Amino acid sequence: MNADTNLGLQARQKIRAGQAPGPTAGLARGNVQANLVILPAEHAADFHRFCQGNPKPCPVLAISQPGSPALPTLGQDIDLRTDLPRYRVWVDGKLVDEPTEISALWRDDLVAFAIGCSFSFEEALIEDGLELRHQTEQCNVSMYRTSIPAASAGPFQGPLVVSMRPFNGADAIRAVQITSRFPAVHGAPVHLGDPSRIGIADISKPDYGDAVSIRDGEMPVFWACGVPPQAALQAAKLPLVITHAPGCMLVTDLRNSTLSTF
Amino acid sequence: MNADTNLGLQARQKIRAGQAPGPTAGLARGNVQANLVILPAEHAADFHRFCQGNPKPCPVLAISQPGSPALPTLGQDIDLRTDLPRYRVWVDGKLVDEPTEISALWRDDLVAFAIGCSFSFEEALIEDGLELRHQTEQCNVSMYRTSIPAASAGPFQGPLVVSMRPFNGADAIRAVQITSRFPAVHGAPVHLGDPSRIGIADISKPDYGDAVSIRDGEMPVFWACGVPPQAALQAAKLPLVITHAPGCMLVTDLRNSTLSTF
Repeated sequence: MNADTNLGLQARQKIRAGQAPGPTAGLARGNVQANLVILPAEHAADFHRFCQGNPKPCPVLAISQPGSPALPTLGQDIDLRTDLPRYRVWVDGKLVDEPTEISALWRDDLVAFAIGCSFSFEEALIEDGLELRHQTEQCNVSMYRTSIPAASAGPFQGPLVVSMRPFNGADAIRAVQITSRFPAVHGAPVHLGDPSRIGIADISKPDYGDAVSIRDGEMPVFWACGVPPQAALQAAKLPLVITHAPGCMLVTDLRNSTLSTF
Repeated sequence: MNADTNLGLQARQKIRAGQAPGPTAGLARGNVQANLVILPAEHAADFHRFCQGNPKPCPVLAISQPGSPALPTLGQDIDLRTDLPRYRVWVDGKLVDEPTEISALWRDDLVAFAIGCSFSFEEALIEDGLELRHQTEQCNVSMYRTSIPAASAGPFQGPLVVSMRPFNGADAIRAVQITSRFPAVHGAPVHLGDPSRIGIADISKPDYGDAVSIRDGEMPVFWACGVPPQAALQAAKLPLVITHAPGCMLVTDLRNSTLSTF
Protein backbone atom coordinates (compact mmCIF):
# COMPACT_ATOMS: atom_id res chain seq x y z
CA MET A 1 0.00 0.00 0.00
CA ASN A 2 1.49 3.34 -0.88
CA ALA A 3 1.10 6.47 1.23
CA ASP A 4 -1.30 8.09 -1.24
CA THR A 5 -3.93 5.38 -0.76
CA ASN A 6 -3.19 4.40 2.83
CA LEU A 7 -6.10 5.92 4.73
CA GLY A 8 -4.75 4.69 8.08
CA LEU A 9 -1.36 6.30 7.55
CA GLN A 10 -3.00 9.53 6.41
CA ALA A 11 -5.17 9.61 9.54
CA ARG A 12 -2.18 8.98 11.81
CA GLN A 13 -0.13 11.69 10.08
CA LYS A 14 -2.98 14.14 10.62
CA ILE A 15 -3.25 13.14 14.29
CA ARG A 16 0.54 13.37 14.71
CA ALA A 17 0.46 16.88 13.26
CA GLY A 18 -2.19 17.89 15.80
CA GLN A 19 -4.86 18.30 13.12
CA ALA A 20 -7.27 15.63 14.44
CA PRO A 21 -7.90 16.06 18.15
CA GLY A 22 -10.26 13.07 18.41
CA PRO A 23 -12.43 11.14 18.85
CA THR A 24 -11.19 8.87 16.08
CA ALA A 25 -14.61 7.49 15.09
CA GLY A 26 -15.06 8.24 11.39
CA LEU A 27 -11.33 8.53 10.61
CA ALA A 28 -10.11 6.11 7.91
CA ARG A 29 -13.63 4.68 7.77
CA GLY A 30 -13.60 0.89 7.35
CA ASN A 31 -10.19 0.51 8.99
CA VAL A 32 -9.64 -1.34 12.25
CA GLN A 33 -9.25 0.89 15.30
CA ALA A 34 -7.63 -0.55 18.42
CA ASN A 35 -7.49 0.05 22.14
CA LEU A 36 -3.97 0.72 23.38
CA VAL A 37 -2.33 -0.47 26.61
CA ILE A 38 1.32 0.34 27.36
CA LEU A 39 3.05 -1.01 30.46
CA PRO A 40 6.53 -1.91 31.72
CA ALA A 41 7.99 -5.19 30.43
CA GLU A 42 8.10 -6.69 33.94
CA HIS A 43 4.27 -6.78 33.96
CA ALA A 44 3.78 -7.51 30.27
CA ALA A 45 3.93 -11.30 30.56
CA ASP A 46 1.20 -11.33 33.23
CA PHE A 47 -0.93 -8.93 31.21
CA HIS A 48 -0.47 -10.99 28.08
CA ARG A 49 -1.52 -14.08 30.03
CA PHE A 50 -4.57 -12.18 31.32
CA CYS A 51 -5.51 -11.37 27.71
CA GLN A 52 -4.88 -14.93 26.60
CA GLY A 53 -7.19 -16.22 29.32
CA ASN A 54 -9.91 -13.71 28.40
CA PRO A 55 -9.92 -13.65 24.62
CA LYS A 56 -13.43 -12.23 24.32
CA PRO A 57 -12.86 -9.04 26.35
CA CYS A 58 -9.13 -8.79 25.53
CA PRO A 59 -8.48 -9.84 21.93
CA VAL A 60 -4.82 -8.95 21.27
CA LEU A 61 -4.18 -7.67 17.74
CA ALA A 62 -0.46 -6.95 18.16
CA ILE A 63 2.27 -6.54 20.80
CA SER A 64 5.31 -4.32 20.39
CA GLN A 65 8.94 -5.27 20.92
CA PRO A 66 9.97 -3.87 24.34
CA GLY A 67 11.03 -0.27 23.84
CA SER A 68 9.67 -0.03 20.31
CA PRO A 69 6.81 2.39 19.59
CA ALA A 70 6.08 0.64 16.27
CA LEU A 71 3.49 -2.04 15.47
CA PRO A 72 4.47 -3.00 11.92
CA THR A 73 1.79 -5.67 11.52
CA LEU A 74 -0.92 -3.06 12.12
CA GLY A 75 0.36 -0.20 10.03
CA GLN A 76 3.10 1.57 8.16
CA ASP A 77 5.28 3.91 10.21
CA ILE A 78 3.13 3.71 13.37
CA ASP A 79 4.61 5.73 16.24
CA LEU A 80 2.62 4.92 19.35
CA ARG A 81 4.05 7.98 21.16
CA THR A 82 2.37 10.47 18.85
CA ASP A 83 -0.24 8.73 16.69
CA LEU A 84 -3.23 8.75 19.03
CA PRO A 85 -5.08 12.04 19.62
CA ARG A 86 -5.08 11.65 23.40
CA TYR A 87 -3.68 9.27 26.02
CA ARG A 88 -4.33 8.53 29.65
CA VAL A 89 -1.43 8.13 32.07
CA TRP A 90 -2.00 6.02 35.17
CA VAL A 91 0.39 5.97 38.14
CA ASP A 92 -0.32 3.49 40.94
CA GLY A 93 -3.80 2.98 39.45
CA LYS A 94 -4.65 6.69 39.48
CA LEU A 95 -5.27 8.81 36.40
CA VAL A 96 -2.63 11.55 36.53
CA ASP A 97 -2.64 13.05 33.04
CA GLU A 98 -4.37 13.08 29.64
CA PRO A 99 -1.63 14.27 27.25
CA THR A 100 -1.84 14.47 23.45
CA GLU A 101 1.51 12.70 23.04
CA ILE A 102 3.77 10.63 25.29
CA SER A 103 7.29 11.06 23.86
CA ALA A 104 8.65 12.36 27.17
CA LEU A 105 7.27 9.32 29.04
CA TRP A 106 8.62 6.70 26.64
CA ARG A 107 11.11 4.17 28.05
CA ASP A 108 13.16 1.27 26.73
CA ASP A 109 11.17 -1.21 28.81
CA LEU A 110 7.67 -0.25 27.68
CA VAL A 111 5.56 -2.83 25.86
CA ALA A 112 2.44 -1.87 23.90
CA PHE A 113 -0.66 -4.02 23.38
CA ALA A 114 -3.16 -3.20 20.65
CA ILE A 115 -6.51 -4.76 21.58
CA GLY A 116 -9.49 -5.22 19.28
CA CYS A 117 -12.56 -3.07 19.88
CA SER A 118 -16.21 -3.30 18.91
CA PHE A 119 -16.02 -0.58 16.25
CA SER A 120 -15.08 -3.28 13.73
CA PHE A 121 -18.06 -5.54 14.36
CA GLU A 122 -20.42 -2.60 14.73
CA GLU A 123 -19.48 -1.55 11.22
CA ALA A 124 -20.38 -5.04 9.98
CA LEU A 125 -23.74 -4.92 11.81
CA ILE A 126 -24.58 -1.53 10.27
CA GLU A 127 -23.49 -2.68 6.80
CA ASP A 128 -25.96 -5.53 7.20
CA GLY A 129 -28.78 -3.10 7.93
CA LEU A 130 -29.10 -3.62 11.69
CA GLU A 131 -29.88 -0.65 13.90
CA LEU A 132 -27.49 0.16 16.75
CA ARG A 133 -29.69 1.81 19.34
CA HIS A 134 -26.89 3.82 20.97
CA GLN A 135 -26.14 5.35 17.58
CA THR A 136 -29.81 6.11 16.92
CA GLU A 137 -30.05 7.70 20.37
CA GLN A 138 -26.66 9.41 19.93
CA CYS A 139 -25.11 8.22 23.16
CA ASN A 140 -22.49 5.75 24.37
CA VAL A 141 -23.15 2.01 24.33
CA SER A 142 -24.53 0.65 27.65
CA MET A 143 -22.01 -1.39 29.65
CA TYR A 144 -22.54 -3.53 32.75
CA ARG A 145 -20.40 -5.37 35.29
CA THR A 146 -21.43 -9.03 35.41
CA SER A 147 -21.20 -11.81 37.97
CA ILE A 148 -18.90 -13.72 35.58
CA PRO A 149 -15.26 -13.46 36.72
CA ALA A 150 -12.51 -12.88 34.18
CA ALA A 151 -9.65 -15.39 34.34
CA SER A 152 -7.00 -13.84 36.58
CA ALA A 153 -3.26 -13.67 35.84
CA GLY A 154 -0.69 -12.23 38.25
CA PRO A 155 -2.07 -8.95 39.59
CA PHE A 156 -4.77 -8.77 36.92
CA GLN A 157 -8.32 -9.77 37.78
CA GLY A 158 -11.90 -8.53 37.79
CA PRO A 159 -15.37 -9.27 36.53
CA LEU A 160 -16.36 -9.65 32.91
CA VAL A 161 -17.92 -6.40 31.67
CA VAL A 162 -20.40 -6.51 28.79
CA SER A 163 -21.75 -4.02 26.31
CA MET A 164 -25.45 -4.31 25.44
CA ARG A 165 -27.30 -3.73 22.20
CA PRO A 166 -31.06 -4.44 22.00
CA PHE A 167 -32.46 -6.38 19.02
CA ASN A 168 -35.63 -8.24 18.11
CA GLY A 169 -35.34 -12.03 17.74
CA ALA A 170 -34.51 -12.18 14.04
CA ASP A 171 -31.94 -9.37 14.31
CA ALA A 172 -30.39 -10.98 17.40
CA ILE A 173 -29.86 -14.17 15.37
CA ARG A 174 -28.28 -12.15 12.57
CA ALA A 175 -26.08 -10.27 15.07
CA VAL A 176 -24.81 -13.59 16.47
CA GLN A 177 -23.95 -14.76 12.96
CA ILE A 178 -22.15 -11.58 11.97
CA THR A 179 -20.15 -11.04 15.16
CA SER A 180 -19.16 -14.73 15.30
CA ARG A 181 -17.02 -14.00 12.24
CA PHE A 182 -14.99 -11.46 14.20
CA PRO A 183 -13.26 -13.23 17.10
CA ALA A 184 -10.48 -10.61 17.01
CA VAL A 185 -12.94 -7.89 18.06
CA HIS A 186 -14.92 -9.56 20.89
CA GLY A 187 -16.66 -12.07 18.61
CA ALA A 188 -20.06 -13.61 19.36
CA PRO A 189 -22.25 -12.37 22.23
CA VAL A 190 -21.72 -13.94 25.63
CA HIS A 191 -25.40 -13.80 26.59
CA LEU A 192 -28.81 -12.73 25.39
CA GLY A 193 -32.14 -12.38 27.16
CA ASP A 194 -32.64 -12.24 30.93
CA PRO A 195 -29.97 -9.86 32.34
CA SER A 196 -30.22 -11.34 35.85
CA ARG A 197 -28.62 -14.57 34.55
CA ILE A 198 -25.28 -12.77 34.33
CA GLY A 199 -25.74 -10.71 37.48
CA ILE A 200 -27.20 -7.53 36.02
CA ALA A 201 -29.86 -6.31 38.48
CA ASP A 202 -31.25 -3.35 36.53
CA ILE A 203 -30.84 -3.09 32.76
CA SER A 204 -31.88 0.58 32.89
CA LYS A 205 -28.81 1.42 34.99
CA PRO A 206 -25.60 0.64 33.13
CA ASP A 207 -22.33 0.76 35.10
CA TYR A 208 -20.60 2.54 32.21
CA GLY A 209 -21.92 4.45 29.20
CA ASP A 210 -25.55 5.43 28.79
CA ALA A 211 -28.91 3.67 29.09
CA VAL A 212 -30.72 3.06 25.80
CA SER A 213 -34.36 2.17 25.21
CA ILE A 214 -35.32 -1.47 24.74
CA ARG A 215 -38.50 -1.60 22.67
CA ASP A 216 -41.42 -3.99 22.85
CA GLY A 217 -40.39 -7.32 21.35
CA GLU A 218 -36.66 -6.68 21.77
CA MET A 219 -34.19 -8.40 24.04
CA PRO A 220 -30.81 -7.27 25.32
CA VAL A 221 -27.83 -8.91 23.60
CA PHE A 222 -24.55 -8.81 25.51
CA TRP A 223 -20.99 -8.82 24.19
CA ALA A 224 -17.75 -8.92 26.14
CA CYS A 225 -16.28 -5.44 26.08
CA GLY A 226 -12.88 -3.87 26.54
CA VAL A 227 -13.45 -2.47 30.03
CA PRO A 228 -12.03 -5.49 31.95
CA PRO A 229 -8.42 -4.99 30.84
CA GLN A 230 -8.69 -1.29 31.72
CA ALA A 231 -10.31 -2.04 35.07
CA ALA A 232 -7.83 -4.81 35.84
CA LEU A 233 -4.92 -2.51 35.05
CA GLN A 234 -6.34 0.16 37.32
CA ALA A 235 -6.92 -2.32 40.15
CA ALA A 236 -3.40 -3.73 39.82
CA LYS A 237 -2.00 -0.27 40.74
CA LEU A 238 1.10 -0.57 38.55
CA PRO A 239 3.67 2.25 38.83
CA LEU A 240 3.01 3.23 35.20
CA VAL A 241 0.37 2.36 32.63
CA ILE A 242 -0.50 4.39 29.54
CA THR A 243 -3.72 3.80 27.61
CA HIS A 244 -5.69 5.53 24.86
CA ALA A 245 -8.17 8.12 26.13
CA PRO A 246 -11.82 7.09 25.62
CA GLY A 247 -12.74 7.30 21.94
CA CYS A 248 -9.17 8.22 20.93
CA MET A 249 -8.03 4.95 19.44
CA LEU A 250 -5.12 3.72 17.37
CA VAL A 251 -6.18 3.92 13.71
CA THR A 252 -4.56 1.02 11.82
CA ASP A 253 -4.00 0.18 8.16
CA LEU A 254 -6.07 -3.02 8.36
CA ARG A 255 -9.53 -3.15 6.86
CA ASN A 256 -12.24 -4.38 9.26
CA SER A 257 -13.22 -7.05 6.73
CA THR A 258 -9.78 -8.67 7.05
CA LEU A 259 -10.67 -9.64 10.63
CA SER A 260 -13.58 -11.76 9.41
CA THR A 261 -12.71 -15.44 9.81
CA PHE A 262 -15.11 -16.58 7.08
CA MET B 1 -16.67 -45.94 -0.61
CA ASN B 2 -17.03 -49.70 -0.80
CA ALA B 3 -20.06 -51.65 0.43
CA ASP B 4 -18.21 -53.01 3.47
CA THR B 5 -17.73 -49.55 4.95
CA ASN B 6 -20.81 -47.82 3.56
CA LEU B 7 -23.07 -47.54 6.60
CA GLY B 8 -25.83 -45.88 4.58
CA LEU B 9 -25.93 -48.65 2.02
CA GLN B 10 -25.91 -51.29 4.76
CA ALA B 11 -28.83 -49.58 6.50
CA ARG B 12 -30.83 -49.37 3.26
CA GLN B 13 -30.14 -53.03 2.45
CA LYS B 14 -31.42 -53.99 5.89
CA ILE B 15 -34.54 -51.86 5.42
CA ARG B 16 -35.08 -53.27 1.92
CA ALA B 17 -34.88 -56.81 3.35
CA GLY B 18 -37.55 -55.93 5.91
CA GLN B 19 -35.13 -56.18 8.82
CA ALA B 20 -35.43 -52.59 10.02
CA PRO B 21 -39.07 -51.54 10.39
CA GLY B 22 -38.23 -47.99 11.56
CA PRO B 23 -38.02 -45.37 12.86
CA THR B 24 -34.67 -44.72 11.20
CA ALA B 25 -33.21 -42.60 14.03
CA GLY B 26 -29.97 -44.27 15.09
CA LEU B 27 -29.41 -46.10 11.78
CA ALA B 28 -26.06 -45.27 10.10
CA ARG B 29 -25.38 -42.83 12.90
CA GLY B 30 -23.73 -39.64 11.63
CA ASN B 31 -25.21 -39.98 8.14
CA VAL B 32 -27.68 -37.52 6.65
CA GLN B 33 -31.31 -38.65 6.73
CA ALA B 34 -33.80 -36.96 4.43
CA ASN B 35 -37.52 -36.33 4.11
CA LEU B 36 -38.98 -37.80 0.90
CA VAL B 37 -41.64 -36.30 -1.35
CA ILE B 38 -42.68 -38.07 -4.56
CA LEU B 39 -45.18 -36.52 -6.96
CA PRO B 40 -46.13 -36.58 -10.65
CA ALA B 41 -43.85 -34.65 -13.01
CA GLU B 42 -46.65 -32.26 -13.99
CA HIS B 43 -46.57 -30.80 -10.44
CA ALA B 44 -42.83 -31.13 -9.86
CA ALA B 45 -41.86 -27.76 -11.32
CA ASP B 46 -44.30 -25.91 -9.05
CA PHE B 47 -43.17 -27.91 -6.04
CA HIS B 48 -39.52 -27.24 -6.85
CA ARG B 49 -40.30 -23.54 -7.12
CA PHE B 50 -42.10 -23.72 -3.75
CA CYS B 51 -38.95 -25.25 -2.22
CA GLN B 52 -36.70 -22.70 -3.91
CA GLY B 53 -38.79 -19.86 -2.47
CA ASN B 54 -38.73 -21.39 1.02
CA PRO B 55 -35.18 -22.67 1.45
CA LYS B 56 -35.33 -22.75 5.24
CA PRO B 57 -38.32 -25.11 5.58
CA CYS B 58 -37.70 -26.92 2.26
CA PRO B 59 -33.97 -27.38 1.67
CA VAL B 60 -33.71 -29.67 -1.37
CA LEU B 61 -30.82 -32.15 -1.17
CA ALA B 62 -31.53 -33.97 -4.44
CA ILE B 63 -34.22 -34.47 -7.12
CA SER B 64 -34.62 -37.63 -9.16
CA GLN B 65 -34.89 -37.92 -12.93
CA PRO B 66 -38.59 -38.43 -13.77
CA GLY B 67 -39.35 -42.12 -13.46
CA SER B 68 -36.06 -43.00 -11.76
CA PRO B 69 -36.14 -44.32 -8.18
CA ALA B 70 -32.42 -43.57 -7.75
CA LEU B 71 -30.71 -40.55 -6.17
CA PRO B 72 -27.07 -41.18 -7.07
CA THR B 73 -25.74 -38.01 -5.42
CA LEU B 74 -27.14 -39.14 -2.07
CA GLY B 75 -26.11 -42.77 -2.07
CA GLN B 76 -25.02 -45.91 -3.83
CA ASP B 77 -27.76 -48.07 -5.28
CA ILE B 78 -30.65 -46.13 -3.67
CA ASP B 79 -34.05 -47.54 -4.64
CA LEU B 80 -36.68 -45.11 -3.40
CA ARG B 81 -39.41 -47.74 -3.89
CA THR B 82 -38.06 -50.05 -1.20
CA ASP B 83 -35.39 -48.29 0.85
CA LEU B 84 -37.55 -46.50 3.42
CA PRO B 85 -39.17 -48.54 6.20
CA ARG B 86 -42.60 -47.01 5.69
CA TYR B 87 -44.31 -44.57 3.31
CA ARG B 88 -47.48 -42.52 3.28
CA VAL B 89 -49.67 -42.45 0.18
CA TRP B 90 -51.89 -39.40 -0.31
CA VAL B 91 -54.71 -39.26 -2.88
CA ASP B 92 -56.51 -35.94 -3.37
CA GLY B 93 -54.88 -34.71 -0.15
CA LYS B 94 -56.12 -37.67 1.92
CA LEU B 95 -53.93 -40.29 3.56
CA VAL B 96 -55.00 -43.60 2.02
CA ASP B 97 -52.21 -46.05 2.90
CA GLU B 98 -48.98 -46.54 4.88
CA PRO B 99 -47.17 -49.29 2.97
CA THR B 100 -43.65 -50.61 3.62
CA GLU B 101 -42.75 -50.39 -0.07
CA ILE B 102 -44.21 -48.65 -3.13
CA SER B 103 -43.07 -50.74 -6.13
CA ALA B 104 -46.64 -51.30 -7.31
CA LEU B 105 -47.36 -47.56 -7.22
CA TRP B 106 -44.27 -46.51 -9.14
CA ARG B 107 -44.79 -44.72 -12.47
CA ASP B 108 -42.63 -43.32 -15.23
CA ASP B 109 -43.72 -39.77 -14.44
CA LEU B 110 -42.90 -39.71 -10.72
CA VAL B 111 -40.29 -37.29 -9.44
CA ALA B 112 -38.71 -37.64 -6.00
CA PHE B 113 -37.45 -34.81 -3.80
CA ALA B 114 -35.09 -35.50 -0.89
CA ILE B 115 -35.39 -32.65 1.60
CA GLY B 116 -33.00 -31.92 4.46
CA CYS B 117 -34.25 -32.53 8.00
CA SER B 118 -33.21 -31.34 11.42
CA PHE B 119 -31.60 -34.65 12.45
CA SER B 120 -28.33 -33.41 10.92
CA PHE B 121 -28.12 -30.16 12.88
CA GLU B 122 -29.43 -31.82 16.03
CA GLU B 123 -26.48 -34.19 15.88
CA ALA B 124 -24.13 -31.20 15.68
CA LEU B 125 -25.85 -29.56 18.67
CA ILE B 126 -25.56 -32.74 20.75
CA GLU B 127 -21.92 -33.23 19.72
CA ASP B 128 -21.28 -29.74 21.03
CA GLY B 129 -22.75 -30.64 24.41
CA LEU B 130 -26.11 -28.87 24.13
CA GLU B 131 -29.20 -30.49 25.61
CA LEU B 132 -32.19 -31.11 23.36
CA ARG B 133 -35.16 -30.95 25.70
CA HIS B 134 -37.41 -33.18 23.57
CA GLN B 135 -34.74 -35.88 23.75
CA THR B 136 -34.34 -35.46 27.52
CA GLU B 137 -38.10 -35.65 27.90
CA GLN B 138 -38.33 -38.48 25.34
CA CYS B 139 -40.98 -36.95 23.16
CA ASN B 140 -41.33 -35.29 19.76
CA VAL B 141 -40.01 -31.81 19.12
CA SER B 142 -42.63 -29.05 19.59
CA MET B 143 -43.86 -27.51 16.34
CA TYR B 144 -46.05 -24.44 15.78
CA ARG B 145 -47.83 -22.74 12.91
CA THR B 146 -46.69 -19.12 12.64
CA SER B 147 -48.16 -15.94 11.21
CA ILE B 148 -45.30 -15.85 8.66
CA PRO B 149 -46.52 -17.01 5.23
CA ALA B 150 -44.38 -19.33 3.13
CA ALA B 151 -43.75 -18.10 -0.42
CA SER B 152 -46.44 -19.71 -2.60
CA ALA B 153 -45.87 -21.44 -5.95
CA GLY B 154 -48.67 -22.85 -8.12
CA PRO B 155 -51.03 -24.81 -5.86
CA PHE B 156 -48.52 -24.85 -2.99
CA GLN B 157 -48.93 -22.41 -0.12
CA GLY B 158 -49.28 -22.23 3.65
CA PRO B 159 -47.80 -20.70 6.77
CA LEU B 160 -44.23 -21.20 7.96
CA VAL B 161 -44.13 -23.89 10.63
CA VAL B 162 -41.34 -23.86 13.19
CA SER B 163 -39.83 -26.37 15.57
CA MET B 164 -38.87 -25.09 19.02
CA ARG B 165 -35.98 -26.00 21.28
CA PRO B 166 -35.50 -24.13 24.57
CA PHE B 167 -32.03 -22.90 25.56
CA ASN B 168 -30.49 -20.46 28.01
CA GLY B 169 -28.86 -17.36 26.52
CA ALA B 170 -25.35 -18.73 26.08
CA ASP B 171 -26.58 -22.00 24.58
CA ALA B 172 -28.97 -20.12 22.27
CA ILE B 173 -25.98 -18.16 20.93
CA ARG B 174 -24.06 -21.40 20.40
CA ALA B 175 -27.07 -23.01 18.72
CA VAL B 176 -27.30 -20.07 16.28
CA GLN B 177 -23.61 -20.48 15.45
CA ILE B 178 -23.80 -24.23 14.92
CA THR B 179 -27.00 -24.37 12.89
CA SER B 180 -25.90 -21.42 10.72
CA ARG B 181 -23.30 -23.79 9.29
CA PHE B 182 -26.03 -26.11 8.02
CA PRO B 183 -28.18 -24.22 5.49
CA ALA B 184 -29.03 -27.54 3.79
CA VAL B 185 -30.90 -28.73 6.89
CA HIS B 186 -32.98 -25.65 7.89
CA GLY B 187 -29.95 -23.57 8.92
CA ALA B 188 -30.07 -20.78 11.50
CA PRO B 189 -33.14 -20.16 13.66
CA VAL B 190 -35.83 -17.86 12.28
CA HIS B 191 -36.71 -16.38 15.67
CA LEU B 192 -35.89 -16.52 19.37
CA GLY B 193 -37.62 -15.08 22.41
CA ASP B 194 -41.21 -13.80 22.51
CA PRO B 195 -43.39 -16.36 20.66
CA SER B 196 -46.18 -13.84 20.03
CA ARG B 197 -43.88 -11.99 17.61
CA ILE B 198 -44.34 -14.82 15.09
CA GLY B 199 -47.98 -15.43 15.88
CA ILE B 200 -47.67 -18.20 18.47
CA ALA B 201 -50.35 -17.54 21.09
CA ASP B 202 -49.52 -20.29 23.59
CA ILE B 203 -46.08 -21.89 23.69
CA SER B 204 -47.41 -24.71 25.89
CA LYS B 205 -49.75 -25.84 23.09
CA PRO B 206 -47.79 -26.90 20.01
CA ASP B 207 -49.73 -27.52 16.79
CA TYR B 208 -47.63 -30.62 16.07
CA GLY B 209 -45.40 -32.80 18.26
CA ASP B 210 -45.32 -32.53 22.04
CA ALA B 211 -44.97 -29.70 24.55
CA VAL B 212 -41.62 -29.59 26.39
CA SER B 213 -40.73 -27.72 29.55
CA ILE B 214 -39.02 -24.34 29.27
CA ARG B 215 -36.99 -23.80 32.43
CA ASP B 216 -36.30 -20.61 34.34
CA GLY B 217 -33.78 -18.52 32.41
CA GLU B 218 -34.43 -20.26 29.12
CA MET B 219 -36.02 -18.89 25.97
CA PRO B 220 -37.66 -20.64 23.05
CA VAL B 221 -35.52 -20.81 19.90
CA PHE B 222 -37.42 -21.42 16.66
CA TRP B 223 -36.22 -23.12 13.48
CA ALA B 224 -38.07 -23.54 10.19
CA CYS B 225 -39.24 -27.14 10.01
CA GLY B 226 -40.26 -29.59 7.32
CA VAL B 227 -44.00 -29.48 7.97
CA PRO B 228 -44.83 -26.72 5.42
CA PRO B 229 -44.00 -28.82 2.34
CA GLN B 230 -46.08 -31.68 3.76
CA ALA B 231 -48.96 -29.37 4.67
CA ALA B 232 -48.79 -27.58 1.32
CA LEU B 233 -48.87 -30.89 -0.52
CA GLN B 234 -51.89 -32.00 1.47
CA ALA B 235 -53.72 -28.73 0.89
CA ALA B 236 -52.98 -28.87 -2.86
CA LYS B 237 -55.02 -32.11 -3.05
CA LEU B 238 -52.93 -33.64 -5.84
CA PRO B 239 -54.17 -36.94 -7.30
CA LEU B 240 -51.07 -38.73 -5.96
CA VAL B 241 -48.32 -37.84 -3.51
CA ILE B 242 -46.07 -40.30 -1.70
CA THR B 243 -44.00 -39.23 1.32
CA HIS B 244 -41.95 -40.94 4.00
CA ALA B 245 -43.95 -41.94 7.09
CA PRO B 246 -43.07 -39.88 10.20
CA GLY B 247 -39.64 -40.92 11.51
CA CYS B 248 -39.05 -43.33 8.60
CA MET B 249 -36.59 -41.32 6.56
CA LEU B 250 -34.28 -41.93 3.63
CA VAL B 251 -30.88 -42.90 5.07
CA THR B 252 -28.15 -41.52 2.76
CA ASP B 253 -24.42 -42.16 2.33
CA LEU B 254 -23.53 -38.54 3.15
CA ARG B 255 -22.01 -37.68 6.48
CA ASN B 256 -23.80 -34.88 8.36
CA SER B 257 -20.50 -33.00 8.63
CA THR B 258 -20.31 -32.69 4.83
CA LEU B 259 -23.35 -30.38 4.96
CA SER B 260 -21.45 -27.87 7.09
CA THR B 261 -20.59 -24.83 5.00
CA PHE B 262 -17.59 -23.87 7.14
